[in-house]
Amino acid sequence: MDVIAELRDIVGDAHVLTGADAAPFARDWTGAYEGEPLAAVRPGSTDEVAAVVKLAGRAGVPVVPVAGNTGLMGGTHAPGRIALSLERMNRIREVRAPSRLAVVEAGVVLSQLHEAVEAEDLVFPLTFGARGSARIGGVLGTNAGGSNVLRYGNTRALCLGLEVVLPSGEVMDLMTELVKDNSGYDLRDLFIGAEGTLGIITAAVVRLFPKPAAYATAMVSVPDLDAGLQLLNELQTATGGAVEAFEYMPKTYIDAHIAHDPKAKRPFDDDYEHNIMVEIGATAPRDAEVAADGTVPVQSYLEEVLAERIESGQVLDAMVARSEAQRREIWARREIAGELTVAGGPGVITDVSVPLDAVARFLERADDAIAKADPGARSMVVSHLGDGNIHLTIWPSDHSEAAHDAMMELVEDIVAELGGSFSAEHGIGLGKQGSMRRRKDPAALAVMRQIKAVLDPGGIMNPGKVLPA
Amino acid sequence: MDVIAELRDIVGDAHVLTGADAAPFARDWTGAYEGEPLAAVRPGSTDEVAAVVKLAGRAGVPVVPVAGNTGLMGGTHAPGRIALSLERMNRIREVRAPSRLAVVEAGVVLSQLHEAVEAEDLVFPLTFGARGSARIGGVLGTNAGGSNVLRYGNTRALCLGLEVVLPSGEVMDLMTELVKDNSGYDLRDLFIGAEGTLGIITAAVVRLFPKPAAYATAMVSVPDLDAGLQLLNELQTATGGAVEAFEYMPKTYIDAHIAHDPKAKRPFDDDYEHNIMVEIGATAPRDAEVAADGTVPVQSYLEEVLAERIESGQVLDAMVARSEAQRREIWARREIAGELTVAGGPGVITDVSVPLDAVARFLERADDAIAKADPGARSMVVSHLGDGNIHLTIWPSDHSEAAHDAMMELVEDIVAELGGSFSAEHGIGLGKQGSMRRRKDPAALAVMRQIKAVLDPGGIMNPGKVLPA
Repeated sequence: MDVIAELRDIVGDAHVLTGADAAPFARDWTGAYEGEPLAAVRPGSTDEVAAVVKLAGRAGVPVVPVAGNTGLMGGTHAPGRIALSLERMNRIREVRAPSRLAVVEAGVVLSQLHEAVEAEDLVFPLTFGARGSARIGGVLGTNAGGSNVLRYGNTRALCLGLEVVLPSGEVMDLMTELVKDNSGYDLRDLFIGAEGTLGIITAAVVRLFPKPAAYATAMVSVPDLDAGLQLLNELQTATGGAVEAFEYMPKTYIDAHIAHDPKAKRPFDDDYEHNIMVEIGATAPRDAEVAADGTVPVQSYLEEVLAERIESGQVLDAMVARSEAQRREIWARREIAGELTVAGGPGVITDVSVPLDAVARFLERADDAIAKADPGARSMVVSHLGDGNIHLTIWPSDHSEAAHDAMMELVEDIVAELGGSFSAEHGIGLGKQGSMRRRKDPAALAVMRQIKAVLDPGGIMNPGKVLPA
Repeated sequence: MDVIAELRDIVGDAHVLTGADAAPFARDWTGAYEGEPLAAVRPGSTDEVAAVVKLAGRAGVPVVPVAGNTGLMGGTHAPGRIALSLERMNRIREVRAPSRLAVVEAGVVLSQLHEAVEAEDLVFPLTFGARGSARIGGVLGTNAGGSNVLRYGNTRALCLGLEVVLPSGEVMDLMTELVKDNSGYDLRDLFIGAEGTLGIITAAVVRLFPKPAAYATAMVSVPDLDAGLQLLNELQTATGGAVEAFEYMPKTYIDAHIAHDPKAKRPFDDDYEHNIMVEIGATAPRDAEVAADGTVPVQSYLEEVLAERIESGQVLDAMVARSEAQRREIWARREIAGELTVAGGPGVITDVSVPLDAVARFLERADDAIAKADPGARSMVVSHLGDGNIHLTIWPSDHSEAAHDAMMELVEDIVAELGGSFSAEHGIGLGKQGSMRRRKDPAALAVMRQIKAVLDPGGIMNPGKVLPA
C-alpha cells in the first residue's frame, strides 16, 4: 500500500489532500517558500497524529506540522513531504476560571481562545497581528512573542502543560496544570520553540490572567532612548509591573505610515524623533472606576507621571487616550507595521534583540553602518522597546540577493557585538539557517544537533528547519 | 600522574581536599546521604571547571557539582567521586539597575545577592529558609522554588542567561541578557533543574525587580480552601498580581508550632482549621506612603477587602500586620516549618503539587487514607497554597523503612489521581528515584534518558541522580 492510501486509512479519505488541494497547507504567507507537499493530512485526534508519524517513520517520508501558517521564516515549507495540519484539532477542552487555566488543542485559533476566556473576565495575554489565523500549535512551536511579552512573558511563560507526539509516534504526556513541578528535565520548554523538529505539539494547558478593567494608553515622545528606559522603569515600579506595551515608533516609522496612508494622523503636531506607545492594564477596581466626569484613575495617574516628566524635560510631549476610539487609533498605528514592511517592497527584514540598555547604541551603529555601506538605502524601525526587540527593515538600493545578504550580515555583526540575538521572536525555520550557522555559540549548536539526532534518528520531523545542515 | 595530582595541577594544592577535609563538601545536611568523595576540588574559574571536567572524562571518574549543599534529595552525594565545589566562584560581576539584571557566578550565596541588589532598591525575589547558605549554582541546578514563586515564578523564570561546562569540558555560552531570543532550542531551561547531570552551571544572568516600598501582610482564617482560592484570585485581580505569598498553615501546623515552642503565639484567639498567611508587595509610591496616623494605603486596602469578606462569611477572622515586628512574627511562624519537620523525628516528608483547585481534595483524601492505613500516624501540613505545592509530613506509628515507603506510595497515588507531581520544588536527586521510575510518564522518562546518554556518553556528570537506573 502506498503512503497516500495509508494516510487515507488513518484519517479518512476526506482529510487527505493532494496536488493543488494540498498546496495551501504548506504555503508560506510571505510567498517566499513554495513547493507542493506529497499530501496534506488533517488528523482529528492525537491518536491519528501518532499514527501518521509512525507511518512517516516506516515510509521514511518527513512530516511537517502546520498550524495557522502565519510564520515568517518558512518553518512549514514541505515540498514532497507530509504537511500535517492541526486545523481539525481545534477544541477548547476546558476553561477553568478559578484555576486560571485553559486546556486547548493545537488547532485552536489564538483569537478563538481570546474570545472564550474573555467571557470569564480573563485574558490569554499573548497577542500579535496574526491572531485571527495563528493557531496554538504554531504559537507554541515557535515560542511566539508579540506586544504583551513585557508583562506576561513569551509563549513559554504562558504554558503549564503539553502533549507531544514524538518522532517515534509515541505520545508524551506532560499535560500538567502545575505551577511547580521539578520531576526531571524540563522537556516542556525544549519542545516549545522547537518548530516541530523534535515532535508535534497536539495539546496544551495554558495560563490565564485577570482581564484589566481599564487601560491607560498613551503616545509619548522622549528626547532619547535612555529617557525612554527610565520612563519604563518608573512606570513598572509605580504600577507593580502593569506595563503591557512599550512600543517604539521613531520618525522613520511615522513617516512611512503617513506615506502609506495619507489619512493617517501624526501622533503629535511636532515631528519628534522618538515616539513610544505606552499601555498600562489596571485590574484593581479602584484604578479602573469611571468617575462622573469621565476620568479613570489609572489614566489620570499616567497623565500625572507624564506631566511631571514633561516638567523635568524627560518627556517632550504626551497624549493619553481618553476614549476607546483614541486607544484603537494608537494601537492601529503600531499594528500596521507588517503592512508597512510589505508595502516597502522586498527588503531586509530583521527581528533582532539586544540588552535593554543597548537599543540606542544598536540603532545608532546600524544607521551609521547602513549609510556608509549604501548611502541610497532606506530603512524603517519599529520595536518592542520594553523587550529590547527591534524590527529594522532595510531597503538597499541594490536589489540583488548578495546585497541583501551583506546588509543582513552588517546588522547581525552589530547585534553580536552588543550581545544580542539575530532571532528574537520569529524563530529560525529556513530563513535564519545562515545566521544560526554563523552566529550561534558552536557548543550550543552542537548540543542542539545531538538532541535532534537522538530524538529523531530517522530525521522525519520537519527536517532541515532550525538546525543548519 | 594520578587524578589527585592532576587536580592539584589544575586548581593548585590548596584547593584539592581529601579525606576528612573533603567529606563536608559532599555531606547532605539532612544527614541521610554519607560517603567520602575521592577529593573535593575548588576551582576558581570557568576554565578550571572545564579542565577538571576534561580530566574526569579522561580518567573516568564522575564529577558532582556542589554549591551550598542545602538540597534535601541527596543531589550532591559523591562517594568516591570528585566533589566540585563552586564556592570560590562567588563574584557578583555586575548589577545593572536600569536593565534590571545581575551577572553572577555560580558560587554566589543567595543572601549575598539579595543584599547587593537591595542597595539599588531592587530585589532578586527568590527566597527560602536556606538563603544564607544556598548558592546560585544549586538554586539553578535544582530550579529552586520557595515562597515568592506565586508572583515571580520559579528560578527558571528569573534567569536570562547561563554559562555551562558541558560533560565534554567545552564551555557553552548562553550568557545573554535578552528577554526575547528564539535562536534554536531552549537549552537554558534544559540545564536549569538538571541537577548537574548534564553539565555544570558556572555563571548566570538573573532578573531583578523593583523592591516593594511597602508590604501588607496578614493572617487570615477561611471556612474552607475553596474560599481561600477565591480570596487569592480576588487579591490578585485587585492588586494586579502583587500577591507575593499565600501560605497555608492548618491547625495541625499551628499545634505543632505551639508544641515545639511554648512561647509561640497562636494566630487567633479562636482555634481555626484553615489559616493562611497573605503578603502583598506594593511598589507604587501611592500605595506605600505612610500617613501621619501611621496607616499605609496597601495595608488599609487589604484590611478593607478582608473586612468585606468577614461580612460575607468568606473569611472567618483576619489580622493585618501593623508593624514590621508583627510582619516578622507572621513570617517566623511560616519559616519554622523545616525545624518542625525535623523536630517530629524521622518522618515521611513529601513535596507534592496538585492543581490549585485540587488542594482541598488532596488533603481530605490523604487524611482519610493515612487514618485508614495507620490510625496511629501523626501528620502535619504546610503549603505554598498559591502554587498548589503541599509539604505533608507523616510520622507513621511503624518506623520501618517499608512502612515509610508504603506511606509515600499512598500519598503519591492520590497525587497521581489528581494530576499532580511527586516532586514540586525539591527535585529528584537520589531521594525521589523510586518515584521517578514509578510515576513519571514513560515516554518523557525515555526522552530524558536519551538526552542524558547523548550529552554525557561517558556518564561522568553526577551519574545516578535524577534518572533512575
